[in-house]
Amino acid sequence: MTESVPRVDAERVLSDLDALAARTGGPDGARRVAWTPGWLDARAFLRERLAELPVDVAEDEAGNVWAELRGGGDRAVVVGSHVDAVPRGGWLDGALGVLAAVEVLRVHAAAPAARRHALRLVDWADEEGARFGSSLLGSGLCAGDVAPADVRDLRDVDGVRLQDALAGCGVDVERAPAARARLADVAAYLELHIEQGPVLEDAGESVGAVLGTVGLDRVAWTFTGQAAHAGTTPLDRRRDAFACAARLALAVREIARAEGGLGTVGRVGVEPNFPTAVAQRVVASVDLRHGDAAALADMQGQVAAQARTIAADERCDVEGPAPLFHAEPAPFAAPLVELARAACQEVAGEGRTLWSGALHDATVMARHVPTAMVFSSSRRGLSHCPEEDTDRDHLRAAIAAFGLLAGRVLAGAGDAES
Amino acid sequence: MTESVPRVDAERVLSDLDALAARTGGPDGARRVAWTPGWLDARAFLRERLAELPVDVAEDEAGNVWAELRGGGDRAVVVGSHVDAVPRGGWLDGALGVLAAVEVLRVHAAAPAARRHALRLVDWADEEGARFGSSLLGSGLCAGDVAPADVRDLRDVDGVRLQDALAGCGVDVERAPAARARLADVAAYLELHIEQGPVLEDAGESVGAVLGTVGLDRVAWTFTGQAAHAGTTPLDRRRDAFACAARLALAVREIARAEGGLGTVGRVGVEPNFPTAVAQRVVASVDLRHGDAAALADMQGQVAAQARTIAADERCDVEGPAPLFHAEPAPFAAPLVELARAACQEVAGEGRTLWSGALHDATVMARHVPTAMVFSSSRRGLSHCPEEDTDRDHLRAAIAAFGLLAGRVLAGAGDAES
Repeated sequence: MTESVPRVDAERVLSDLDALAARTGGPDGARRVAWTPGWLDARAFLRERLAELPVDVAEDEAGNVWAELRGGGDRAVVVGSHVDAVPRGGWLDGALGVLAAVEVLRVHAAAPAARRHALRLVDWADEEGARFGSSLLGSGLCAGDVAPADVRDLRDVDGVRLQDALAGCGVDVERAPAARARLADVAAYLELHIEQGPVLEDAGESVGAVLGTVGLDRVAWTFTGQAAHAGTTPLDRRRDAFACAARLALAVREIARAEGGLGTVGRVGVEPNFPTAVAQRVVASVDLRHGDAAALADMQGQVAAQARTIAADERCDVEGPAPLFHAEPAPFAAPLVELARAACQEVAGEGRTLWSGALHDATVMARHVPTAMVFSSSRRGLSHCPEEDTDRDHLRAAIAAFGLLAGRVLAGAGDAES
Repeated sequence: MTESVPRVDAERVLSDLDALAARTGGPDGARRVAWTPGWLDARAFLRERLAELPVDVAEDEAGNVWAELRGGGDRAVVVGSHVDAVPRGGWLDGALGVLAAVEVLRVHAAAPAARRHALRLVDWADEEGARFGSSLLGSGLCAGDVAPADVRDLRDVDGVRLQDALAGCGVDVERAPAARARLADVAAYLELHIEQGPVLEDAGESVGAVLGTVGLDRVAWTFTGQAAHAGTTPLDRRRDAFACAARLALAVREIARAEGGLGTVGRVGVEPNFPTAVAQRVVASVDLRHGDAAALADMQGQVAAQARTIAADERCDVEGPAPLFHAEPAPFAAPLVELARAACQEVAGEGRTLWSGALHDATVMARHVPTAMVFSSSRRGLSHCPEEDTDRDHLRAAIAAFGLLAGRVLAGAGDAES
């Protein structure tokens, strides 16, 4: 295969990221929550950038923005991410992938001979689910993994229905399934994102190829004991719901450690929550993640067994697991992952592969089309906060690696027949 | 000593308790929070009962109601408790002791020859501290243990200042120290109360003599780690503040068990408290109680050492202990405790002595005057809730034992020279 991949210019991406941050961010972080004016402004910025290119721009029935470079092939390579953000979010989460995708279109607009496939950008609507609690919304609706009935009646904190908020942005959620046609001819989906974790930084590396997104099982366990006076109830007479939650949190960590996965008790609600009262009722979330579905199921089973053993031992009642969220592991397409790894190796001398512990629009896409992701490092692993940042040299490396990957896939390197 | 103690009639006390509950309670529990209309109504009920007796009724400068039987000696035996309650409180907490004291006055009004001492009832104001957070207020102000400056600027949840609320009930908190004169001639303070714990019920007993109230040390410990994404942060990179609190809660229990005291982590605040975020900051209350001051101090030291060890182990920061409340053990007067024990033995065939893990107005009095308490059992150990209850036969036994104790002390049985 002759190497004729046009080279992306990372400086233009950094310049666009700075401009977007200046327009929709500030010291309190990004103001780009989906279905709000800040997000519409970020999308207006994106459309201004796209207006400089020979592309056809359209919004699909699920609210996702697509831009296709004119003069494509029968099948398309899709590059993109999301410009929406959590409240007080970071400047890179999502925006990096969309503005790097703009640069991919920019360089390929000038080099039509370099690609075998059509090139299409997507800005997924509402990846974060920050306002209505349903993440991966635009990609999920587009792929058919989410049905309008699943989400139309969700309400934000002010009581506004999702269906009405989307209508205010020109999206009729009932018609969203029609967006699925956009995926019919997709040969590959490629996304660049910040890692949002410390793995690359700890290894002293700037970029990595993502193996897939881990499976996730998020549930709540409720322990019920007996509220009792802290001064008058002997220890051996207590039914202390908080003792159950404390023991479960430590058990979750041990189980995750033993299985090589992740386990987190992050939300804990205590009733009555007085210093002088033994806890009557404690609700604890348990978030388990593992790249391997069987190992994830095994972790779930061990946590459930521990929850019941602890409750019996503490003479408390236990209810659960109450499901909060579940996603199966989404391994990416092995040939594309290898292309991504090779691109990272060539650009930065780093050939690391890693699982993503966070979900992405790529998680949805991987169920339907060959998919790969490139990660840049994240400073201190922080994301979803104003402090989110990445060394600019690491961003340059990641953008270059992503550009190389996209160029090769556009040239047909990922095709089954190649 | 010739036994000439007039016998109290427990049925009259039960009848008064039922009438008070009908007037100021209901299915949602007692409505007698101090410095509110329900409490004033309960006090009006008390004054109606006192109006049937040959007593002089007066309110002191701290808002405590006193009623002295006419024709007393140079020194006084004080019997009483409090009619205020926590919100949605029980029908017996405090009210039992006040209305049993009314009955003591009632029978002694008809038997002036039976007593060597004056007989005085007290209804302490605001034992619970339910509205302003400062318990034992009326007794503390009267004894001089609480100064007006300590409490005048406390505010309730609506922002009302304690000083203003008291003024609305006719109490000038600045003048409260003058109430101390009421204690100058007190030979003994005697109080009947429900146990508010399960010890007597578990032993199958109805009454017990209280050895004193335990020492109490209530503090807050704050652990600070780093908020981190539950999906992207490896376990060995986490600084999980909730893991610290979980380990501390379990350590507190073990320390209390080993020392023969009580330890409770009842209030736990978690930030940011999202299922997908490792906890950044957790504040946990630690309430320790022990009858022995040295053992209590030892428990405090062990908990502090554990808090620091756990924080270091989890790579978190720790702040504490932040004091919330402290009370030294308050042992009651041994001769009076023995008289109380003997009265319980004679009435119910039960000579059990026990520590009180809860504080009472008697805790304050014990620092200033010879003090004793009698406990009735509490059904399931429950108190401070509408379900608070005691078997009526146990109430009858406790009222009878308290009447016998009061009669003997009035006759001079507790005097140092007797």
